[in-house]
Amino acid sequence: MAKATVSLAGRDILDLESFSVEEINLVLQTAAEMKKIMKRDIKKVPSLRGKSIINLFYEPSTRTRTSFELAGKYLGADVVNITTSTSSVVKGECLRDTILTVQSMCCDAIVMRHPIEGAAVYAADVAKPVIINAGDGAHAHPSQGLLDMFTLREKGLKDLKGKKMVILGDILYSRVARTNIAAWNKMGADVHVAGPRPLMPYAVESLGVTYHKRIEEAIEGADVIDVLRIQLERQKSGLFPSPREYARIFGLNEARLKLAKPDCVVLHPGPMNRGLEISWDVGYCDQAAIRDEVQNGVAVRMALLFLTLTGGKQIEAAN
Amino acid sequence: MAKATVSLAGRDILDLESFSVEEINLVLQTAAEMKKIMKRDIKKVPSLRGKSIINLFYEPSTRTRTSFELAGKYLGADVVNITTSTSSVVKGECLRDTILTVQSMCCDAIVMRHPIEGAAVYAADVAKPVIINAGDGAHAHPSQGLLDMFTLREKGLKDLKGKKMVILGDILYSRVARTNIAAWNKMGADVHVAGPRPLMPYAVESLGVTYHKRIEEAIEGADVIDVLRIQLERQKSGLFPSPREYARIFGLNEARLKLAKPDCVVLHPGPMNRGLEISWDVGYCDQAAIRDEVQNGVAVRMALLFLTLTGGKQIEAAN
Amino acid sequence: MAKATVSLAGRDILDLESFSVEEINLVLQTAAEMKKIMKRDIKKVPSLRGKSIINLFYEPSTRTRTSFELAGKYLGADVVNITTSTSSVVKGECLRDTILTVQSMCCDAIVMRHPIEGAAVYAADVAKPVIINAGDGAHAHPSQGLLDMFTLREKGLKDLKGKKMVILGDILYSRVARTNIAAWNKMGADVHVAGPRPLMPYAVESLGVTYHKRIEEAIEGADVIDVLRIQLERQKSGLFPSPREYARIFGLNEARLKLAKPDCVVLHPGPMNRGLEISWDVGYCDQAAIRDEVQNGVAVRMALLFLTLTGGKQIEAAN
Repeated sequence: MAKATVSLAGRDILDLESFSVEEINLVLQTAAEMKKIMKRDIKKVPSLRGKSIINLFYEPSTRTRTSFELAGKYLGADVVNITTSTSSVVKGECLRDTILTVQSMCCDAIVMRHPIEGAAVYAADVAKPVIINAGDGAHAHPSQGLLDMFTLREKGLKDLKGKKMVILGDILYSRVARTNIAAWNKMGADVHVAGPRPLMPYAVESLGVTYHKRIEEAIEGADVIDVLRIQLERQKSGLFPSPREYARIFGLNEARLKLAKPDCVVLHPGPMNRGLEISWDVGYCDQAAIRDEVQNGVAVRMALLFLTLTGGKQIEAAN
Repeated sequence: MAKATVSLAGRDILDLESFSVEEINLVLQTAAEMKKIMKRDIKKVPSLRGKSIINLFYEPSTRTRTSFELAGKYLGADVVNITTSTSSVVKGECLRDTILTVQSMCCDAIVMRHPIEGAAVYAADVAKPVIINAGDGAHAHPSQGLLDMFTLREKGLKDLKGKKMVILGDILYSRVARTNIAAWNKMGADVHVAGPRPLMPYAVESLGVTYHKRIEEAIEGADVIDVLRIQLERQKSGLFPSPREYARIFGLNEARLKLAKPDCVVLHPGPMNRGLEISWDVGYCDQAAIRDEVQNGVAVRMALLFLTLTGGKQIEAAN
Repeated sequence: MAKATVSLAGRDILDLESFSVEEINLVLQTAAEMKKIMKRDIKKVPSLRGKSIINLFYEPSTRTRTSFELAGKYLGADVVNITTSTSSVVKGECLRDTILTVQSMCCDAIVMRHPIEGAAVYAADVAKPVIINAGDGAHAHPSQGLLDMFTLREKGLKDLKGKKMVILGDILYSRVARTNIAAWNKMGADVHVAGPRPLMPYAVESLGVTYHKRIEEAIEGADVIDVLRIQLERQKSGLFPSPREYARIFGLNEARLKLAKPDCVVLHPGPMNRGLEISWDVGYCDQAAIRDEVQNGVAVRMALLFLTLTGGKQIEAAN
């Protein structure tokens, strides 16, 4: 274990802006230990035995929910899922009351996904249990940002200072984009974005990025390319390019990837629309770290649950 | 542990009419022990380890399902959720066969919610595992009645004899109302109800209550006010007041609460429609015991699972 | 434990065609041990503690999902459910990517139901964890075939050689039919089918069965009758008999059952449509083994998980 001079005991995990570099390092070092546990033959450790975690999901998300559920269970916690599709907690009930209800049941952490920006911040204000933001609208998804950083370190990118980081696609609706832009800027990276104008926020440069209309220009010499999922379900206005146009003009394919540095790492938060924002070949190429991201996601979430609920003690235990 | 002369081992929990006062006391005393376990740092005890509980929910209910799920897990049981929304058990299958199917899988208890009155009684007749009625239509919801009684005792109302208990709102469709009326009458309380006539059962007085058309009359001098949720989804006939009218004529607000005794306890089974049957202020006032009800709900359900599945042995154990 | 000369360690369970008779025997002998564990007062054993199982269901199925979930939990594994109804894993994502995503989370087994024939075979080709096919379209449902064989052995039918086995109903859409036909033929049984022509595959005889237009002819002297559920949801063409016609012409009732051998065993994979493919009386008669099938299903699934994930070691453990 890292001999931490910082502690995340009891901390709500709401965004990455509020994390210091030392705190990020603590999470990533702990996640490295967690990854060893995950890869054992017998994965379960009793670090969080007797703790209960509620997955409170107001939007469907199998990927993130499963990742947190496994993270909790690998650490021995009890995990209970609440999703709006089967939920009567929310019949006319305000968010404050739902959070207080869940808190009253003595849960230790609430992992929360919500379609509205700021929902997790509001919940943290109301609730005593640890709140972990698993995505609030287009605002933040801190565990995604941390798992991406963990993955980049594994790939040798320990210091992001001056690195050219490119995010492609739907910046407007993407909490992943906002989260990574904030984190990478904090680390001193040089962040670029490209994609159709209607998928960029107004004055996108104010986020601290360089905008490129042409994807080739953005990719040129890149150290990292983070390809966002095109969320077809959000594009109903007719302002956006069709899927076929998108793939032709903005999709990451082999030819375009050659413009980046030879060891450029390709990230994607998943699920991928192959043939749309990313070609089949690139998704499975050696530079693609997409499956690493999934695996590291569980490790990072184990670290977050462990650090917030125990303060970092007793990571190892007999079984 | 209470030195019980009564036992609930193997008992189906179908309604409160069939409970003796001694049995109610056993549940409430056990729940008090359970509440201590819930509030520990390490909540899990192995009392029900190796037991399996099926949550069989034919109606969506996050609140009650989550409460039973946590209760089972805090005691070390395995809990499996079956809800109709994801259910193929019920494709054309009769309830008898579904219950026998679940029983054949060697579960120890079935926690059952069903839209039809008597469904749990029928299931108990068919099945060998313990059946816990988590609500059957407008009939009964015994764990709600017990948690309300537990909450009232905590608030100092140990003896309900002669107390003025008021239930406000939708008596017609409410299993909570029927359950509490039965329990409070058994304890010798003086039970009153108020609400719009179309939300009252025919001959409501035959339930053993005094009906008041005007809410103020009912509340006057009350020791306890139990505010029911207005189930907007059940009101399609046009016979009922609009939400705005309801709030104005029947909603519990600060002015009306002043008509009750100064230490009157306000209950609500949740989820609350604030601004409709209860005002924002009253829901969060010191007299409101709504969050206590949620917490005590888990404790009472732990007690019910523990007493029915073990007969009350080995409550405490190292782990 | 059987002193096995065969092992299923790491094996994908995709169909019964690929099982040797020795392997089938190993599963059934292990299931007999598992059934003893299931019927204990304290059911949980730690054989699969630290292993994680994902139930990946692309079709709703409470019965099979619950059976596998309990099987995993009785053996101490962690079980996580993913169903398409709440799933975002599948937003535009190809099956290959979903399987690789789940694998990356370090699960040990994926129990998979999918509407398309061959989906499980494809998944097994892609994935390192053990794949257990819990039904792929009209192709195969190997655990159902094994539990039926287990049930028949319990009923005294240890050797199927030369036995008259009859399958009634919807052969066209039924993976249970295909699975049992393959298994029973392998055991040397004489397999017959009956049902309306539009519910038979083209050239049904090529499956190795004798087709009878009249159910009475098929049942005559039968040792086993397996009644399939009529899947009303799949019959929209108008080519099929109406439910009332079906019950009259093809339903198994007491009069028809008398045509079979006196100790003929009646199977049904459930859920039953009583009054349609099977009469109320026959479903509950002494010869009906339907509840045995449900119970044995959990035991057989425990055996499959145990044998594939451990290779058969450490079945017993204190707890």
